[in-house]
Amino acid sequence: MRFVIDAMGGDYAPEMPVRGAVNAVKEFGYEIVLVGKEEEINSILKGYSFPKEKITIVNATEVIGMDEPAALSVRKKKDNSITRGLQLLKKEEADAFISAGNTGAVVCAATLNLRLLPGVDRPGIAVIIPTLAKPCMVIDVGANIDPKPLHILQYGIMGDAYSRHVLGKTSPTIALLNIGEESTKGNDFVKEAHLMMAESKLNFIGNIEPKEVYEGHADVVVCDGFVGNVFLKVSEGFAYAGAELLKRELKASNIITKIGAFLALPAFKAIKKKVDAREYGGAPLLGVDGRVLISHGSSDEKAIKNAVRTAAEYINQQVNVHIVEALKIY
Amino acid sequence: MRFVIDAMGGDYAPEMPVRGAVNAVKEFGYEIVLVGKEEEINSILKGYSFPKEKITIVNATEVIGMDEPAALSVRKKKDNSITRGLQLLKKEEADAFISAGNTGAVVCAATLNLRLLPGVDRPGIAVIIPTLAKPCMVIDVGANIDPKPLHILQYGIMGDAYSRHVLGKTSPTIALLNIGEESTKGNDFVKEAHLMMAESKLNFIGNIEPKEVYEGHADVVVCDGFVGNVFLKVSEGFAYAGAELLKRELKASNIITKIGAFLALPAFKAIKKKVDAREYGGAPLLGVDGRVLISHGSSDEKAIKNAVRTAAEYINQQVNVHIVEALKIY
Repeated sequence: MRFVIDAMGGDYAPEMPVRGAVNAVKEFGYEIVLVGKEEEINSILKGYSFPKEKITIVNATEVIGMDEPAALSVRKKKDNSITRGLQLLKKEEADAFISAGNTGAVVCAATLNLRLLPGVDRPGIAVIIPTLAKPCMVIDVGANIDPKPLHILQYGIMGDAYSRHVLGKTSPTIALLNIGEESTKGNDFVKEAHLMMAESKLNFIGNIEPKEVYEGHADVVVCDGFVGNVFLKVSEGFAYAGAELLKRELKASNIITKIGAFLALPAFKAIKKKVDAREYGGAPLLGVDGRVLISHGSSDEKAIKNAVRTAAEYINQQVNVHIVEALKIY
Repeated sequence: MRFVIDAMGGDYAPEMPVRGAVNAVKEFGYEIVLVGKEEEINSILKGYSFPKEKITIVNATEVIGMDEPAALSVRKKKDNSITRGLQLLKKEEADAFISAGNTGAVVCAATLNLRLLPGVDRPGIAVIIPTLAKPCMVIDVGANIDPKPLHILQYGIMGDAYSRHVLGKTSPTIALLNIGEESTKGNDFVKEAHLMMAESKLNFIGNIEPKEVYEGHADVVVCDGFVGNVFLKVSEGFAYAGAELLKRELKASNIITKIGAFLALPAFKAIKKKVDAREYGGAPLLGVDGRVLISHGSSDEKAIKNAVRTAAEYINQQVNVHIVEALKIY
């Protein structure tokens, strides 16, 4: 298998994507193509030892910044690393593309260059989050922020396929993110989506509230990409604020409390490990005709390496074939 | 001042609203009217000593359950405690109404019975959340889940008035909750709301992401009621899951880690106190022609008592007068 990694994508690019590629080569033995500014990539690669034949570089002279307008940048910067990388997939010179770069640009360029699977109207980013019970797939978390209810149904079908074939669930439970559990709850958009889900052949368990998502009541949670993105960002922001509050409080504490916190550290470290967002490393962009994984902007080498492993499972399990089949029958 | 408390509203009704009323009478000396099933209220009141002339009961034979469809229940159950309570405000027999009951029913009954302030198209629930810097008002968190961009502007104006006159900010910063900071970010709805806010006379500081909300970058954050409700519920769910994870981890820990956690407890307690959701006790439903406060369903006696204090400030500062004036000039 051959993976393309966007060397210029993410807050710590090109350093982290390049180091992630080196780690993936060493740990999994896969071939990696690094796309981006050749000189910069080479100067980082020089510092590491790895089987040279496993990593190739494809030069791309332009970079789309993390906060640049997505569609405009993809159109104007013809030689950007995202587009160049996706073109390798299109030409079947590689099996999957991974980027920690501008999410909007990846979604836009992937849709333009790879097109969508038959039966899919919009792609969706499917992120796997830890819960108190089992991992849960949330789709969409930001690819499609002005969706129609039909797109939500398609997310359910795609999430179902991924959950069955990659995560090994035999009859995944699918739920709709909402602000109340009753079917009458929510705005017009979710009510219409609820009706469509209920009429499908999915194992639809109805509406789910955020707390129940975290309790692990569903295998797949579908939502509007705007709401899904808020969901993720509130979780991140809350976790950050909580940790910060604790730090400040401990700084102002007496010596006994400080010693206590030091002794309790292993528990915090164990939790941190269990909820490590780098576990999967990348979220599949389901619905495009190709395998594209979007990694968090703050991805480090471990996240990028794990994204390669996630991409390999995505390929091995032929998820896209299953999605196309499922869209015909559901 | 005279306050009406919905004795039947909330997960712990009538026990907690009644006890909250007793506490408010004892601590603040205000008059309280308890609306609900007279016998049940009396049997709880019997257990407490308080100046009897300060609490009166208005009988209401029906109760709207926490999960009942709002509009339908308000229409069918004519003698429900929420409607009966609001009618006392309408007849100017009381100055404010507090309920921890069915939020949708309170919004619906308040709009029907009190009508809206001139210039307001939809009411909004304005909740004050703790942040790393200063308290922040988020409006709307669930009154209006299918809003128009104009409603968001009105929330900004109402939040500005509340922030100036009750929270004492001289020029409150107003931000729009979004999934990116640039003005080009977000769905069509927030882009349109952004334009309207930018053209207003508000001290609008642009888009804000959830993490920055928690860092305390804005005094007032406006959003769609569906998104605002997700924001609150993700925060709650995340806090719950985090605490639960920690409990489980500590249970499985060795004795040293357990002792450490025990010694560090004061820090956790201090944080819990700082972020206590019961601090304000109730969120004003801004925009209705009257003072209505919505308390969390899980409110205890402390929350209800504090809601009375918050309501008193709302009355004293003549917020509704200021809102009507502001809507004319912004």
